[in-house]
Amino acid sequence: MRFEDLNVPVGEMESGPLRRISDVPGVTVGHCTVTGPRHQTGVTVVMPCADDPYERKLPCAAFVLNGFGKTQGLMQVEELGQLETPIALTNTLNVGKVHDALVSYVLAEEAKRGVSVRTLNPVVCECNDASLNDIGERVIGEREVLAAIRTAAADFPVGAVGAGRGMTCHGLKGGIGSASRIIRAEGSAYTVGVLALTNHGRLHDLRVDGEPVGREIEQKLTEDLPDKGSCILILATDLPATDRQLKRILRRCSVGLIRLGSFIGHGSGEVFLGFSTANRIPRDDPGLTQPCRRLNEDRMDLVFRAAAECAEEAVLDSLAAAETVTGPDGTTRTALPDIWPPKREERPC
Amino acid sequence: MRFEDLNVPVGEMESGPLRRISDVPGVTVGHCTVTGPRHQTGVTVVMPCADDPYERKLPCAAFVLNGFGKTQGLMQVEELGQLETPIALTNTLNVGKVHDALVSYVLAEEAKRGVSVRTLNPVVCECNDASLNDIGERVIGEREVLAAIRTAAADFPVGAVGAGRGMTCHGLKGGIGSASRIIRAEGSAYTVGVLALTNHGRLHDLRVDGEPVGREIEQKLTEDLPDKGSCILILATDLPATDRQLKRILRRCSVGLIRLGSFIGHGSGEVFLGFSTANRIPRDDPGLTQPCRRLNEDRMDLVFRAAAECAEEAVLDSLAAAETVTGPDGTTRTALPDIWPPKREERPC
Amino acid sequence: MRFEDLNVPVGEMESGPLRRISDVPGVTVGHCTVTGPRHQTGVTVVMPCADDPYERKLPCAAFVLNGFGKTQGLMQVEELGQLETPIALTNTLNVGKVHDALVSYVLAEEAKRGVSVRTLNPVVCECNDASLNDIGERVIGEREVLAAIRTAAADFPVGAVGAGRGMTCHGLKGGIGSASRIIRAEGSAYTVGVLALTNHGRLHDLRVDGEPVGREIEQKLTEDLPDKGSCILILATDLPATDRQLKRILRRCSVGLIRLGSFIGHGSGEVFLGFSTANRIPRDDPGLTQPCRRLNEDRMDLVFRAAAECAEEAVLDSLAAAETVTGPDGTTRTALPDIWPPKREERPC
Amino acid sequence: MRFEDLNVPVGEMESGPLRRISDVPGVTVGHCTVTGPRHQTGVTVVMPCADDPYERKLPCAAFVLNGFGKTQGLMQVEELGQLETPIALTNTLNVGKVHDALVSYVLAEEAKRGVSVRTLNPVVCECNDASLNDIGERVIGEREVLAAIRTAAADFPVGAVGAGRGMTCHGLKGGIGSASRIIRAEGSAYTVGVLALTNHGRLHDLRVDGEPVGREIEQKLTEDLPDKGSCILILATDLPATDRQLKRILRRCSVGLIRLGSFIGHGSGEVFLGFSTANRIPRDDPGLTQPCRRLNEDRMDLVFRAAAECAEEAVLDSLAAAETVTGPDGTTRTALPDIWPPKREERPC
Repeated sequence: MRFEDLNVPVGEMESGPLRRISDVPGVTVGHCTVTGPRHQTGVTVVMPCADDPYERKLPCAAFVLNGFGKTQGLMQVEELGQLETPIALTNTLNVGKVHDALVSYVLAEEAKRGVSVRTLNPVVCECNDASLNDIGERVIGEREVLAAIRTAAADFPVGAVGAGRGMTCHGLKGGIGSASRIIRAEGSAYTVGVLALTNHGRLHDLRVDGEPVGREIEQKLTEDLPDKGSCILILATDLPATDRQLKRILRRCSVGLIRLGSFIGHGSGEVFLGFSTANRIPRDDPGLTQPCRRLNEDRMDLVFRAAAECAEEAVLDSLAAAETVTGPDGTTRTALPDIWPPKREERPC
Repeated sequence: MRFEDLNVPVGEMESGPLRRISDVPGVTVGHCTVTGPRHQTGVTVVMPCADDPYERKLPCAAFVLNGFGKTQGLMQVEELGQLETPIALTNTLNVGKVHDALVSYVLAEEAKRGVSVRTLNPVVCECNDASLNDIGERVIGEREVLAAIRTAAADFPVGAVGAGRGMTCHGLKGGIGSASRIIRAEGSAYTVGVLALTNHGRLHDLRVDGEPVGREIEQKLTEDLPDKGSCILILATDLPATDRQLKRILRRCSVGLIRLGSFIGHGSGEVFLGFSTANRIPRDDPGLTQPCRRLNEDRMDLVFRAAAECAEEAVLDSLAAAETVTGPDGTTRTALPDIWPPKREERPC
Repeated sequence: MRFEDLNVPVGEMESGPLRRISDVPGVTVGHCTVTGPRHQTGVTVVMPCADDPYERKLPCAAFVLNGFGKTQGLMQVEELGQLETPIALTNTLNVGKVHDALVSYVLAEEAKRGVSVRTLNPVVCECNDASLNDIGERVIGEREVLAAIRTAAADFPVGAVGAGRGMTCHGLKGGIGSASRIIRAEGSAYTVGVLALTNHGRLHDLRVDGEPVGREIEQKLTEDLPDKGSCILILATDLPATDRQLKRILRRCSVGLIRLGSFIGHGSGEVFLGFSTANRIPRDDPGLTQPCRRLNEDRMDLVFRAAAECAEEAVLDSLAAAETVTGPDGTTRTALPDIWPPKREERPC
Repeated sequence: MRFEDLNVPVGEMESGPLRRISDVPGVTVGHCTVTGPRHQTGVTVVMPCADDPYERKLPCAAFVLNGFGKTQGLMQVEELGQLETPIALTNTLNVGKVHDALVSYVLAEEAKRGVSVRTLNPVVCECNDASLNDIGERVIGEREVLAAIRTAAADFPVGAVGAGRGMTCHGLKGGIGSASRIIRAEGSAYTVGVLALTNHGRLHDLRVDGEPVGREIEQKLTEDLPDKGSCILILATDLPATDRQLKRILRRCSVGLIRLGSFIGHGSGEVFLGFSTANRIPRDDPGLTQPCRRLNEDRMDLVFRAAAECAEEAVLDSLAAAETVTGPDGTTRTALPDIWPPKREERPC
């Protein structure tokens, strides 16, 4: 099940065929999910391009809506406006090991090409899955990261998989969701896509298309959860956005979260990372200047709307695609489709 | 008419008695409204304290959601975390003259006390009222600013007054709105208050308590307006928030705007400025250190919710309190209460 | 007299022919100086291009080393990365009036072209000349700003002129200085130029090419001045730097100031603004994307060195070109050339 | 050998007794150095307080002068203004493993107290030692980090030790240096201390007390190195600086680097992190507000000067305390004392 099965509208723009970030050509996503008596966790990797991001870096920016989080790699992204590795998402205490795994991966890949890598800026994002996962053990290592990379595909699974396995969103089962929007202009079709890792929000606050769904269903759930967690949104586009423009676009991802009811709680680290597959930056270029393109600033509204719609749909998709999961201490997070929308027989006539 | 007459809920927290930013003790607001054949404009001044802000400065911060605007004074606010003048709001092209008027005002006030002011950081915020006002003429000068200051009161008017006279919000008549929330803790009652100057949003996107009001009423209006303008929110509190904490609180004002349907359009400069009336900073203090208080970071959620609710209600208040205004070229902005909610006789039974 | 007459080296790069910011093609500078019994002040205007910056905006960025200052217009520069007006420099309390004068100027210019301007982001920078000027009177208005614009030329005066008239730098007479550096690459010659408005630093700390000149000459001056004031640096280049790259380049202007002995005092608002004359941004462009060029990030060191050298030389130039000036209350600021380097007969053999 | 043996002055303020960051009460530093045929590397850990930083967090801020680096943990520091772990410094590719080691360490420490840690923000800083170290192997793991923590002391070694083992500064052997300054006010003595990890600068540019030492000695060295690397400065103080004030103080650390000749090269990630041992932040506090103190902003200049002097002296100390080190491929970095100042017999009479 996915977002579209909820039969609720999100915005008015055209969706891409996969309804995923991978509608942006070259972008793929892979997961490695770890389940067991003590663990519901995993790692998700976004491959930003079909070729090598280290040799041909991608324009990149981040917007930090709430910095109470442990995402790594943003300082250099801010300074250079470049992405040079796959983007990994995992649980909070595992970022160090996953960072190291990305180093191993890129060093090995480049060694195959005869390139000796001596500096690297891996980007690792995280949410906290401690309510369903024995997070202190840090079970995600090089093996899991490489497994996720191997499975990377355009038609990747969403829901309680990969980094999303142990996440909680609006008191329900959160996880991985995705969405895309098409922008047609000047005879071309461009795509904006978002991947969400959702672990934020109170159930009481949840709204779907304006309807206070959280208040409708909260009595069906026994636990009243505080608003803690985080939300990571990865945005990709083939529009030639500069790093400053990407940051402006990412800011509009806030819109999607808030439409669904988030008030950006203190404990919810909300970090949005975006990259463009246009205007690639070669690693070894002797020239002083390089040609590129940029977006016409005056026409940004269309892109802003696309980002807002993608973010909203991707978060909702993570709820729609979820399955109910129980953690090591018996904590259960119910999947939204298990309790909403009410089945026909439950509805009042 | 005000927000409460709309009979729609905004959040669940307790409101202050005036439902205004002036529920924060010491804060007052004054307007000077200029209307005429070519002008629908004005200036609004927020007096941040009952005593002298130049002699006892106030902790202050800003959050810029969209910097496409001309607000002045934020650089020093960011560096020093201090506010030392009243805050003026006016139209876009008038910020220079209003800035100069604030300089005149403070120099004159301090001269009365025998203080010779040689440096000053006036804060002037703006939205663009060019659709209802011949903005090129810049009719707001020292006389108007002083008039606004003279009328400053706790029980100030809202709606199409002062800086709000010529503003447009979600295609309807925008302007000045206000709201407040009470936080009770440890035997004390603290207040968070917001003043909004609203000039942003598309009508189509307007939502009230989740309901797509914009889509319901858009066919009643002849003009389809692009999303341009701006929104200024001034937040006051007597909570002892540090400048960093104020910035975090201000970020949650975004929530209020977005709940009502804004997607933070390119042309809509959204600037939030906040100050605390606690922890005042004396101008002439020989000591190396000063005592103060701060908020417990772990209990910020309550303040965040208050900021989000105040922002939402203040924007809605600006729509509820508006009156229909026609500009020099015949452009008319309809007040929300003139077309929504539908009168009983219009409603389908 | 100018910097080169001091016979001290600043760096090792090639200087432009005018040793001024106006070595960047299209850039000109004009001054209006106001002197009288109560005033030593003025305004300086940097015209960023030979054609209309409102119709064809310029990539622009700012770096705020110390935000204790009143510079206006940076919020929008940060958001959009664009400059659309001349840049004015004046005294602290005059920024409002000068802002308004720039509005008048651009509205009038555009009206000639049939364009009705309804929004504008003037950039006004300032330093505090209150020690030599009765700053409370704010004598710089529209007439002075227009006079400065009329006189704009490539071969503009430096020293105690324009906005620099009443400034104090390292306890000596400061004011306006300028410098440029040439970067040759791929058969082209590019220019980096800086204009300085200097009003910062303690005399004791002044170093020239490493030599502790301040300590050598401080006993010649009767007054020990605290380190207050400010320093504005305007950087221009015809290199195709993006706004992010401009910000990185501007950060290296700090190097020039510090080499001369500044420790960036609390009271010294140090603000650097930079623009590129390449990659102009048309006001009315229907397209979704635009072609442009960018600097190769890996070759930035050359540009960084040029910025550091320009900043150092421009500040030194402001000292070298100064004349001794006395203010309304008899305060005198001695020009460096009046006391250093020591004449031959004063030197110990 | 240390800085003071160079017999060059750095500023005019009083030094602390240890001439180290550990003159700030409670601060200690430990190293683990790894040397071998393929490795000259290590890890250095700054323990910010004698008690538990996780239970009683410290006010903290960062200033990023050049963000081309991989330092981890700054996003949360920026958001919350808090430090909750020891600060580790190591080589570029080792940050992931060292991050993970800090997680292990804190989890184990807190488990002893019966506290189960489910979220943590380790701060790991880095410079690139690839010229003397086979960096791809990442030999710093949990064992080395714990060893560094065990040896933490106030009287810690400086020079080519710990994280500084493989570093290069101004073409010479860099590494670890430290310095402190005393501020006496109102009957109290406060301390500002800095620890430097130096890996930046060109030899040609090196200045010592203004003297162009780099140009004097560059012909003695065979290799002309590009300006790459990084510089990390950790600043500690017992002054009650707020996070915003710490950031202002850290900005003045730039002064120290630049006085010694750095122009902040593109490849030199310069990251400054500062914390205060005053105003600790309890982890479990039920109250809404907390008492604290802050610095009087008007008296910051003294603290700024202390920071600038500490930074300059700490970098110089790293050069003075160095020993010549040869890497796996025969690359040698000469220690400054081996070639400067010239021995008496070498000096011209």
